[in-house]
Amino acid sequence: MRVLGIDPGSNCTGYGIVESGRNTLKSIHWGSIKSKSRTPFPDRLKTIYDDLTRVIGEYKPEIVAIEDLFFAVNAQSTIKLGQTRGVALLAAVNASLTVAEYTPLEVKLSIVGYGRADKNQVRDMVTTLLRLKEKPEPLDASDALAVAICHLHNHGTSNRLKEALSSRR
Amino acid sequence: MRVLGIDPGSNCTGYGIVESGRNTLKSIHWGSIKSKSRTPFPDRLKTIYDDLTRVIGEYKPEIVAIEDLFFAVNAQSTIKLGQTRGVALLAAVNASLTVAEYTPLEVKLSIVGYGRADKNQVRDMVTTLLRLKEKPEPLDASDALAVAICHLHNHGTSNRLKEALSSRR
Repeated sequence: MRVLGIDPGSNCTGYGIVESGRNTLKSIHWGSIKSKSRTPFPDRLKTIYDDLTRVIGEYKPEIVAIEDLFFAVNAQSTIKLGQTRGVALLAAVNASLTVAEYTPLEVKLSIVGYGRADKNQVRDMVTTLLRLKEKPEPLDASDALAVAICHLHNHGTSNRLKEALSSRR
Repeated sequence: MRVLGIDPGSNCTGYGIVESGRNTLKSIHWGSIKSKSRTPFPDRLKTIYDDLTRVIGEYKPEIVAIEDLFFAVNAQSTIKLGQTRGVALLAAVNASLTVAEYTPLEVKLSIVGYGRADKNQVRDMVTTLLRLKEKPEPLDASDALAVAICHLHNHGTSNRLKEALSSRR
């Protein structure tokens, strides 16, 4: 199963593609979409949408996992973040992909086992789990890889649970 | 000049197209895009994006005017509203249209001359200004017509100002 993780941000949107095999996780690609603050916001949204659509077309994930947002520093930045997330969701739906949403707490618990882990701790665990030689840059990209891994962990658990239950019968 | 006004909302997004002639305003079309609350949010975003893209293709506005958002009841609904607004902006930019943004205060001052006017007062003025026989339904559509008229008022003022200044020379 191949998952595209997305960490939406109005200044920088991270993405990362992770594939699961039998008991292994493999990173396929990651990166980030940066916006110049001077660029009009609607054009920044278009860049994010176009770039994610290109990534989906090139790496053909089967599902999209995205961080759920609950708050931001203020209402204005919450709206900006919401707008960014909106076009990221649209890129997934327009490519006929299902979207799974995870809160930052779920992602951190799944990756680090500790809900108040910081972005650097998350990156260290992502680096270990994917057996990468270098830490993924920028932090937004490692956050995106973390969301993808979180989905695979959850998916794996529910699959193993199904197998265990069916073997009992 | 033909303007598409948009009033984004996660449950109902209003739109309205207004054209200006010499000292007249004419409504071309208005309506709303309603989402069923049971529909997954990403699919609701796709409906809004697709419907607005269709409206733009059919009525060929020259510019899009949209309400700026500053707050919502809580962070979660602010994000939903932001996501809706994001795909509305994307529909405009993907059709190569410029986007003008107006705060609710600017719209109300422009239409009713009173910043704390309610949606019904705005609709009454929209009905008068466009010389409509019936009040536009739903309120989201009349709000969208109001944003379009607000843009034409502002545009008219700046144009008249330019003419006045150039005739002075």
